[in-house]
Amino acid sequence: MSEPVTGPAHVPVPNTNGAVRSRMVTWADPVEAAQRLASMSGLEAMHALMRGEVPPPPMAALLDMWPIEVDEGRAVFRVTPAEFHYNPIGVVHGGMAATILDSAMGCAVQTTLPAGVGYTTLDLQASFVRPITRDTGPLRCEGTVLHRGRRVATAEGRVIAEATGKLVASGTSTCLVTHAD
Amino acid sequence: MSEPVTGPAHVPVPNTNGAVRSRMVTWADPVEAAQRLASMSGLEAMHALMRGEVPPPPMAALLDMWPIEVDEGRAVFRVTPAEFHYNPIGVVHGGMAATILDSAMGCAVQTTLPAGVGYTTLDLQASFVRPITRDTGPLRCEGTVLHRGRRVATAEGRVIAEATGKLVASGTSTCLVTHAD
Amino acid sequence: MSEPVTGPAHVPVPNTNGAVRSRMVTWADPVEAAQRLASMSGLEAMHALMRGEVPPPPMAALLDMWPIEVDEGRAVFRVTPAEFHYNPIGVVHGGMAATILDSAMGCAVQTTLPAGVGYTTLDLQASFVRPITRDTGPLRCEGTVLHRGRRVATAEGRVIAEATGKLVASGTSTCLVTHAD
Amino acid sequence: MSEPVTGPAHVPVPNTNGAVRSRMVTWADPVEAAQRLASMSGLEAMHALMRGEVPPPPMAALLDMWPIEVDEGRAVFRVTPAEFHYNPIGVVHGGMAATILDSAMGCAVQTTLPAGVGYTTLDLQASFVRPITRDTGPLRCEGTVLHRGRRVATAEGRVIAEATGKLVASGTSTCLVTHAD
Repeated sequence: MSEPVTGPAHVPVPNTNGAVRSRMVTWADPVEAAQRLASMSGLEAMHALMRGEVPPPPMAALLDMWPIEVDEGRAVFRVTPAEFHYNPIGVVHGGMAATILDSAMGCAVQTTLPAGVGYTTLDLQASFVRPITRDTGPLRCEGTVLHRGRRVATAEGRVIAEATGKLVASGTSTCLVTHAD
Repeated sequence: MSEPVTGPAHVPVPNTNGAVRSRMVTWADPVEAAQRLASMSGLEAMHALMRGEVPPPPMAALLDMWPIEVDEGRAVFRVTPAEFHYNPIGVVHGGMAATILDSAMGCAVQTTLPAGVGYTTLDLQASFVRPITRDTGPLRCEGTVLHRGRRVATAEGRVIAEATGKLVASGTSTCLVTHAD
Repeated sequence: MSEPVTGPAHVPVPNTNGAVRSRMVTWADPVEAAQRLASMSGLEAMHALMRGEVPPPPMAALLDMWPIEVDEGRAVFRVTPAEFHYNPIGVVHGGMAATILDSAMGCAVQTTLPAGVGYTTLDLQASFVRPITRDTGPLRCEGTVLHRGRRVATAEGRVIAEATGKLVASGTSTCLVTHAD
Repeated sequence: MSEPVTGPAHVPVPNTNGAVRSRMVTWADPVEAAQRLASMSGLEAMHALMRGEVPPPPMAALLDMWPIEVDEGRAVFRVTPAEFHYNPIGVVHGGMAATILDSAMGCAVQTTLPAGVGYTTLDLQASFVRPITRDTGPLRCEGTVLHRGRRVATAEGRVIAEATGKLVASGTSTCLVTHAD
């Protein structure tokens, strides 16, 4: 058993052997935006986000993933895999697919909720079936509600490469439905 | 059943009712970095990343999550939840916890691999037990290998709030171990 | 914190306040049966089991769950929930739905394998969306392959109550595909 | 694509090429037992089951798995893998490990509940890390609560071979905690 190695919490970008890439990300106060959305039904909230009437959630802006289609019980997100999604083994981080799955499945559940009813994800499961790279091209992630009960909802999700139609990841989610009372 | 609504893939930041926040993210070519790491054992690769000898993976820089301690079969990451991790319901996106869990569990597996042996995550499961906000303070995520077989490894992870010691999320992971031959 | 209580490994049926029910279960040597099946393709093996040319797997007989339809990439099992499936909280044990899901998803993967190629389940996930009781009536569990790679396959499953068409449980599975060489 | 093949729902034990094994399983009315347990706290209910004051749940008797140790937030079950647990590929069915994991994790949650508060499993995840056979010898499955909130509890479980101390399976569970009001 080797000695544990500890390091600085923030490693400076070092020794890059080449051009450093950069990107400016911007966002607005997410709590203020969430409060505005909370007075709407889930479907209205998604529409308000998609029409740009409410600032987008910062995590979506950070990862560049966006809702492109919503309906009752269904939400579709889109992302174009980029270098800034990469992990240390030279492909897109599993966390990117997990995040878009969580977004699409959570929003699918949200579209079934009236105003005043909220939700929170309890459990997220993701299976990664093909590597994703900067050459994969745009991905489409569709979340679909499997069951919407009074207290619990379950959803499934699929991430498909648009260029080939092939499945790259899939997932399931269990959400708690929370009533104001 | 309502009509599906479709929107633009990229919503401009609109109507923010307040200050827009921004942040510059930078990274280096992740494929070139991964190639340098591939010639090392998993533990050496983690040490090289932590010492800043190889540029950090872009996704880690994007989400501001960093390895702080590694040992054979174990990896600890740290993140300070920030506004840029927020989802549309006014708390940190589940994808942030899923990503740090995937990082810590994957790197824990990686520390057990000799040079020339790779891995890929097949399955990620995350349970979210407490909401995470910009007031939660730094989180520590420890990944631990449960089983390392010749072809498959499993790991578990815990995300703990440093201020309170309380569990905020937990997870499991199944990885495929890939031999060059 | 209370004292741990330890008990006998095998509790005799006690104090039943009523009729004791009983059932005789029978099976044949499962290793001998598995060896006969191993020389067939996965689809042939399922057909041989369904035609009664090979003794059924003991666990299927024990839980009274049976394949009723198979095709390439798909397997359907059927079970009628009974008292002998019950847990201590007065409904059918989650393990029953987990077992039929594992069977249907595993056999769905098996139908895609040529002779000489095997599989083993790495990861099973099940969501329970409605309680199952002795009054639910027959359940149909369909497993479907989502992705069949050279080394790994993923499948999903649904458990539906035949009387109502309602979903009672769903699941996903990741299998390792094992080549003889 | 081949033709689907359909078969009888109940296949008779056929062509066994050897001795047929049999086993008589017995149980008492599980709903009546559950009603008696429902008036106790979770820990009292587990103790009553272990002392034989209430008939064991039929599924436990069917699979021959028994609680051997319980404490607040923890439950240990024991099973000796037998031929009657086998699947068609000649080893113990994954459903057996999934069932004992679900039992141990669910009962661990139950030990934290006062009288009048119930629970139900929402989500079960199991990883199978080593094959289990009739030669493996007794297995010990320990379930431990990770988090017990007012509405949701999470637990983890480990299945260990007693003879070697090696992990054979692990799992996680998310339960809904249900209040009578």
